[in-house]
Amino acid sequence: MVRITGKRISESTINRLSIYYRILESLEREGYQTVSSKDLAQREKLTPAQVRKDLSFFGQFGTRGLGYPVSELRRQIAEILGINKRWNVALVGIGNVGSALVSYKEFAKQGFQIKLIFDNDQRKIGSFHKGIEVHDVKNLKSLLNKNNIEIVILAVPASVAQLIIDEVVSAGVSAILSFAPANLRVPSNVTLRSVNMAMELEHLSFHLTNENLYYTA
Amino acid sequence: MVRITGKRISESTINRLSIYYRILESLEREGYQTVSSKDLAQREKLTPAQVRKDLSFFGQFGTRGLGYPVSELRRQIAEILGINKRWNVALVGIGNVGSALVSYKEFAKQGFQIKLIFDNDQRKIGSFHKGIEVHDVKNLKSLLNKNNIEIVILAVPASVAQLIIDEVVSAGVSAILSFAPANLRVPSNVTLRSVNMAMELEHLSFHLTNENLYYTA
Repeated sequence: MVRITGKRISESTINRLSIYYRILESLEREGYQTVSSKDLAQREKLTPAQVRKDLSFFGQFGTRGLGYPVSELRRQIAEILGINKRWNVALVGIGNVGSALVSYKEFAKQGFQIKLIFDNDQRKIGSFHKGIEVHDVKNLKSLLNKNNIEIVILAVPASVAQLIIDEVVSAGVSAILSFAPANLRVPSNVTLRSVNMAMELEHLSFHLTNENLYYTA
Repeated sequence: MVRITGKRISESTINRLSIYYRILESLEREGYQTVSSKDLAQREKLTPAQVRKDLSFFGQFGTRGLGYPVSELRRQIAEILGINKRWNVALVGIGNVGSALVSYKEFAKQGFQIKLIFDNDQRKIGSFHKGIEVHDVKNLKSLLNKNNIEIVILAVPASVAQLIIDEVVSAGVSAILSFAPANLRVPSNVTLRSVNMAMELEHLSFHLTNENLYYTA
């Protein structure tokens, strides 16, 4: 078990752990046994101190002068990120975004298995996407329960997003990823992560607008 | 002009500015004249101190006891984010993800106008998506230049992403949003933002795995 109790881990750190994981994976493929904080930092335009701080969540792990053991570090990060196991995922909404997500190979690779798809369009209900049947969103709650769904991905219009989230929450699911451009509310025991494509572009327009501004990673 | 010179602005702050902008927009629609840091904080599960710190980039702006003027603050955030103007955007790759992006209404609303689409699939070249013609990716560099494209969105397979990024950079574009699940490199004067859907899910699996862990926003 990774001992991380008592430490505070920010969302940015979680993000960097995901990135380190991917770097370690490719280093492992390339046959590397160890990696220094400097090398990890260079690949992500971070400072070695930042990398060491992030990896200190795993206790005294790297060896001064030798660096971190690649496979072992990758395995430990997988454990802390919870990607060393399989997660049952349901997708609500099979429009353009939903279709893109079902085809997204990296989900299954990282352990996220889309087991159920829901939609409210009668023409879509009963059809199959990548072998997964589309169910009527009317049966959302009962099917989430029956299939032990742990994570729900929402790719629905903003106008219905809160309604569906309330139902997902009432089904006992406590992890939701939303692509709906809406301000959504969940109880404090539920983790909601929203992806807003426009907000991603706003990072770029910010940098284009403030080119000479110092900013931190 | 917003005076922000000399301050360091983190990517998380930019993210929160985008969120404040959306809250202020809906407050404005609802007819509110002012908003307190406490109200802004509550809507995003932040502390009022964090909100005040973020908004301090705009100088002494709020009035103690009265709060921030909604319309004026919204306007100033739009200016700092660069969404008070129009940006010429090109999209490379019109598969599932690309199609979803072209249909994404919030882009145009925030000033991001997709002017050009590129693909390498002969069956797609010459077709139109939402009124925008699909061009041969062979002509990428010359068309980016001719159309003064400022931002490029990449929705291509990981295997060709770096190749296309190199070309985009050589065309003088310095802001790229990538949906390719790949480790990509750009010169230091170029801003690259990568959206990785699997990494978004890893935030959720992290929280599901470490339920009792303290973490910071």
